[in-house]
Amino acid sequence: MKRIFSLIVVSFFVGSLHADEGMWVLNNLPKDLLKKKYDFDLTDAWRERVMKASIRFNNGGSGSFVSPNGLAITNHHIGSDLIQKLSTKDKDLHKHGFLAKTIEDELKCPDLELNVLQEIVDVTKDVQNAVKPDMKPAAALAARKAIMAKIAKDSLAKTGLRSDIVTLYHGAQYHLYRYKKYTDVRLVMAPEYQIAFFGGDSDNFEYPRYNLDICFFRVYENGRPAATPDYFKFSPTGPKADELVFVSGHPGTTNRLETLARLEHRRDVLLPYNLQMLRYREALLSQYAEKGAEQRRLAQRDLFPVANARKALTGQYHGLLDPAIMKQKRAAEVALRPDNLKPEDDPWQRIAAAQEKLRTLEVAYYVLERGDAIDSRLFRIARHLTRLAYELPKPDAERLPEYRSTALESLKFQLFSPAPISKEYEQMKIAGSLYFAAEKFGADDDFLRSALGRKAIPQRTRELIAGTKLDDVAERKRLFEGGQKAIEASDDSLIQFALDWDINALAIRQKFDELDEVQAQAYADIAKIRFKKLGTSIAPDATFTLRLAFGTVQGYEVDGVKLGHATTFAQMYARAKEQEHHHPFDLPKRWLDGQKKLVGATPFNFVSTADTIGGNSGSPVLNRAGEFVGINFDRNRHGLVRNFVYTDFQARHISVHSRAIVESLQNLYAAQGLVNELMGK
Amino acid sequence: MKRIFSLIVVSFFVGSLHADEGMWVLNNLPKDLLKKKYDFDLTDAWRERVMKASIRFNNGGSGSFVSPNGLAITNHHIGSDLIQKLSTKDKDLHKHGFLAKTIEDELKCPDLELNVLQEIVDVTKDVQNAVKPDMKPAAALAARKAIMAKIAKDSLAKTGLRSDIVTLYHGAQYHLYRYKKYTDVRLVMAPEYQIAFFGGDSDNFEYPRYNLDICFFRVYENGRPAATPDYFKFSPTGPKADELVFVSGHPGTTNRLETLARLEHRRDVLLPYNLQMLRYREALLSQYAEKGAEQRRLAQRDLFPVANARKALTGQYHGLLDPAIMKQKRAAEVALRPDNLKPEDDPWQRIAAAQEKLRTLEVAYYVLERGDAIDSRLFRIARHLTRLAYELPKPDAERLPEYRSTALESLKFQLFSPAPISKEYEQMKIAGSLYFAAEKFGADDDFLRSALGRKAIPQRTRELIAGTKLDDVAERKRLFEGGQKAIEASDDSLIQFALDWDINALAIRQKFDELDEVQAQAYADIAKIRFKKLGTSIAPDATFTLRLAFGTVQGYEVDGVKLGHATTFAQMYARAKEQEHHHPFDLPKRWLDGQKKLVGATPFNFVSTADTIGGNSGSPVLNRAGEFVGINFDRNRHGLVRNFVYTDFQARHISVHSRAIVESLQNLYAAQGLVNELMGK
Repeated sequence: MKRIFSLIVVSFFVGSLHADEGMWVLNNLPKDLLKKKYDFDLTDAWRERVMKASIRFNNGGSGSFVSPNGLAITNHHIGSDLIQKLSTKDKDLHKHGFLAKTIEDELKCPDLELNVLQEIVDVTKDVQNAVKPDMKPAAALAARKAIMAKIAKDSLAKTGLRSDIVTLYHGAQYHLYRYKKYTDVRLVMAPEYQIAFFGGDSDNFEYPRYNLDICFFRVYENGRPAATPDYFKFSPTGPKADELVFVSGHPGTTNRLETLARLEHRRDVLLPYNLQMLRYREALLSQYAEKGAEQRRLAQRDLFPVANARKALTGQYHGLLDPAIMKQKRAAEVALRPDNLKPEDDPWQRIAAAQEKLRTLEVAYYVLERGDAIDSRLFRIARHLTRLAYELPKPDAERLPEYRSTALESLKFQLFSPAPISKEYEQMKIAGSLYFAAEKFGADDDFLRSALGRKAIPQRTRELIAGTKLDDVAERKRLFEGGQKAIEASDDSLIQFALDWDINALAIRQKFDELDEVQAQAYADIAKIRFKKLGTSIAPDATFTLRLAFGTVQGYEVDGVKLGHATTFAQMYARAKEQEHHHPFDLPKRWLDGQKKLVGATPFNFVSTADTIGGNSGSPVLNRAGEFVGINFDRNRHGLVRNFVYTDFQARHISVHSRAIVESLQNLYAAQGLVNELMGK
Repeated sequence: MKRIFSLIVVSFFVGSLHADEGMWVLNNLPKDLLKKKYDFDLTDAWRERVMKASIRFNNGGSGSFVSPNGLAITNHHIGSDLIQKLSTKDKDLHKHGFLAKTIEDELKCPDLELNVLQEIVDVTKDVQNAVKPDMKPAAALAARKAIMAKIAKDSLAKTGLRSDIVTLYHGAQYHLYRYKKYTDVRLVMAPEYQIAFFGGDSDNFEYPRYNLDICFFRVYENGRPAATPDYFKFSPTGPKADELVFVSGHPGTTNRLETLARLEHRRDVLLPYNLQMLRYREALLSQYAEKGAEQRRLAQRDLFPVANARKALTGQYHGLLDPAIMKQKRAAEVALRPDNLKPEDDPWQRIAAAQEKLRTLEVAYYVLERGDAIDSRLFRIARHLTRLAYELPKPDAERLPEYRSTALESLKFQLFSPAPISKEYEQMKIAGSLYFAAEKFGADDDFLRSALGRKAIPQRTRELIAGTKLDDVAERKRLFEGGQKAIEASDDSLIQFALDWDINALAIRQKFDELDEVQAQAYADIAKIRFKKLGTSIAPDATFTLRLAFGTVQGYEVDGVKLGHATTFAQMYARAKEQEHHHPFDLPKRWLDGQKKLVGATPFNFVSTADTIGGNSGSPVLNRAGEFVGINFDRNRHGLVRNFVYTDFQARHISVHSRAIVESLQNLYAAQGLVNELMGK
């Protein structure tokens, strides 16, 4: 047995495809495999519709069109940011839910951008040819940035479509993605937060589950619902056990192709740091939320993503601490790594050397450049404004990527968002994150001293907030239009603060980017070695771009207990009762009162083996016919190691069943119009 | 103004007594000052009664006798540990409260020890003479340990009283404290947790407050209520504004005499570490508590002290980050430190050098020896049993202090406590704390590798818990009686684990204790310098021994808002309403329904300027006549820096008013018998 096991382990990582692994790019789908294993013919028309009916939510999730009239569905926890921005002190849509009775009642979102992929072009050769073999890392980085900026800019000019270059296989391939963009997006329907997230943090990343984690938006063009001829028909029956299903969405990041040295760096440096930071922030926000109803409302928007990340990263961390997983990763690396590499040519050694340098640098990068030390929307606005003033006069290719002309429109959309900003809340967050930075670096650290100017943190923070007008959109526009001159003349406290901050932050970023380039080149070399063995028979790591995964609807066993492929409404009511309706197991009144209006046996949530990761939230789950049978919203905890290794032994993604959606809309929300639209009536 | 200010600052710390600063030892009370400032004559009889009516709760708090029949009062949050141990799955006294209708209904605590101070003897000369000037730190430490052990042992033999040596002024004085000990302690009355801690973590360390943070116990001797002729008469009227009051209790630790180097070490190393640890633990416990009612009940006992410490240490940390406070401390040190010290004689430099060595060592000490890496009652039992087996055969003076014959009886009382232990809960805590240790030291750290034996943490933890019988008191007794032989023959998983663990832990402790001795000697030298200037005109740092503080009942102002000296019942109801009765501002049913039974204007909580710190919880507040006018339960957040500096500008301690106690017992709890006993009827 032992021998067979180790053979399996090696082939699992280095050799052919394991089970249903893979988040496939739309221009390289595993058609042969699907035909052979599932007798499924993936046609070009099927592929084309999946591409054009799938949506990227730019705030970090996925979704899809479910009617020809621009109706889109995503998870409640993806729409939640907007639902809260549309709420007020007196009208809490997040808590009580929302339904637009008519088209006129749909609520326009202040700053939501949706992207829909239209076309993929392989530009690998153009990018690779721009980097000459004798270039040093800094020059190679500049050359690559320049050619990528040029390709994207030319594409935008030519097509008018948002154009992004996507780096696949850590630099072995470069593809140009062209998106249709929607910025007039309106809220159509959202259930109560408490049913969207029944079980709360306690049940997050667990199964069995009972969540109606959905909400509906509609995209508009020229003030009218947009025509979306490519959409998914809603299946009123949903999927059955063992059925083949597909998940089409935008998985954010996986690290399956990373070297062992990088994974150890994640385990021993990055994950401990990030977990500390997230726990700190979660405690800060939870404690603030306890102060009263308005504070609770303000904090809730930030709390979910923080708690969610904390739980996801905890699962990743525990996975990397598991000696069995690291042993598998080591075996895979040994099998792939050639014996005859000279030390100076060995990309694995170059990556390991970079991790040594990143030990302290990467945390400093998070604190200063990612902004962990000053977690504030107002500060982020100030920083964009100051940086824009100096970046925009430069040629496109020399700018920081986020300020290139191709990215500018989306950035301005965010920057000038009319969503209100609470200064009291910002002050609490800035003080809290500065205290966190002090904990990390000590009170005598240079950057902290210069940021505080020998003042106590509460005093300095009060001054920063009192002295800024950046909560006023008109002032932001004035500073943006005025460029360097306006920035340098500004006595806005946060603008001045951001200018000072950048002296340190940009220096750290420069060093970090150079080490990133060293790694990018080494991964490109590893990719060549891997390509020689495997070609594109394995999927690239996730990059928050459109991917298709597949698997079957299947329960699993934990410690001898069998968990079915789906849960039911009746089981949800039983769970709430067993937990004495104690928060987070309290149901909204509508659901408590409406138990008899629902069929107890209706499947509510279900699981499948398909390969997903964070970013897939809101992804449509499709059957062979390309019909919408559910919406992915989570993984179970066994699936949290999927950042590093795919497994389908117990790992599952979790979805809301299409039948539960239709039944609850109809019987609890009196949303007959919406149901008719979904059913094509 | 500037010059006057800096003069004040210097005199404030180095010169004479500031305002009402001081936690005074009972054999050096500031009689002259009290006479001069308040025209109060502190008589020997007054002092004697305060000493013998004040109680130390060995689980970390204070209390007092309030009837001649052994009736004792303390805070609910001090009794809470016991209240929860006396609760069961079906009878949750913590949630619903408790009242013994008759003496027979009083509930015996499994492991509560109370100490009452009877006598103080100055043994400074005996201790100091045992240490010779030419001894190296290790030898000096051994000599001091030996003489202290001998004095305590002789005292116990002679008097039968618990005998502890207390180190005052960081080694300038050594006093022998003799205590009467009570181990048969029974619960008499406790209100609901929700009124004892109304406002929860959110209002903890804040003011205005509305907490009935009390509970009653009774001490027994020979199965009958003990006679306690020294007790405090309950004042039905309580204190008025500006009245002089005294606080008699057991403040735990202050650091006012520490050097700047040590405070910087606290700020940059210890407090960040401890805050991280506490936040980690709080998150772990809160998340566990969300899983269900029984989990909530189990976790609650540990949650309060963790959240409380997190909030207290946060206040300390923010205080040390305040440049104004550090500037004051620096000025005080400069004023005290002679100019003409040779570097090798300079105790400040020796302390600074020790901090350098402690940078990594002290955290390792916390993780391994304090046990942060394995936070578990079962593990602590295993460690005591293994250590006892090797320590008990040694002569008393050579043992670790906690295993000396004078400490043994109290330790065994804890060790053989019949309080039930949940293995599921222990497993969760062990796994959680091992993950924390991995975050601190990295997965490849030697001690972690040896603790885990290349297994994943969940697997190793399951084995540890499955393989131990230490939840059985009889098994603990068997191993204790069997000594080394029984320990070495034991195949109990936790006994074996504790033996392995100690190889690293005891080595760290040895190094830590040596550095502690270096510091102790340096502080003794500083104390001599300070004594030359000030004598005992300032009080020593707190040591969890009996102290008397005094001050006046006084409101204060924050950001222009005046806060009165007391709150009322009516204000509490208004606060609950304003917070929509949302947890933690939800009132128990008894209080909601009973609003009309209470007089709205009755003072509920009040504040005074007296000098208190953690450990003072449950301290009686006394008037000139020595009557009980209230019970201290908290400080406000301005008082959190009192670990380092006394201030009465806004800093206050907070107490429950005696009138509120009597009125709620009578009108809401129908506790007329208890009220009669308090009133001496």
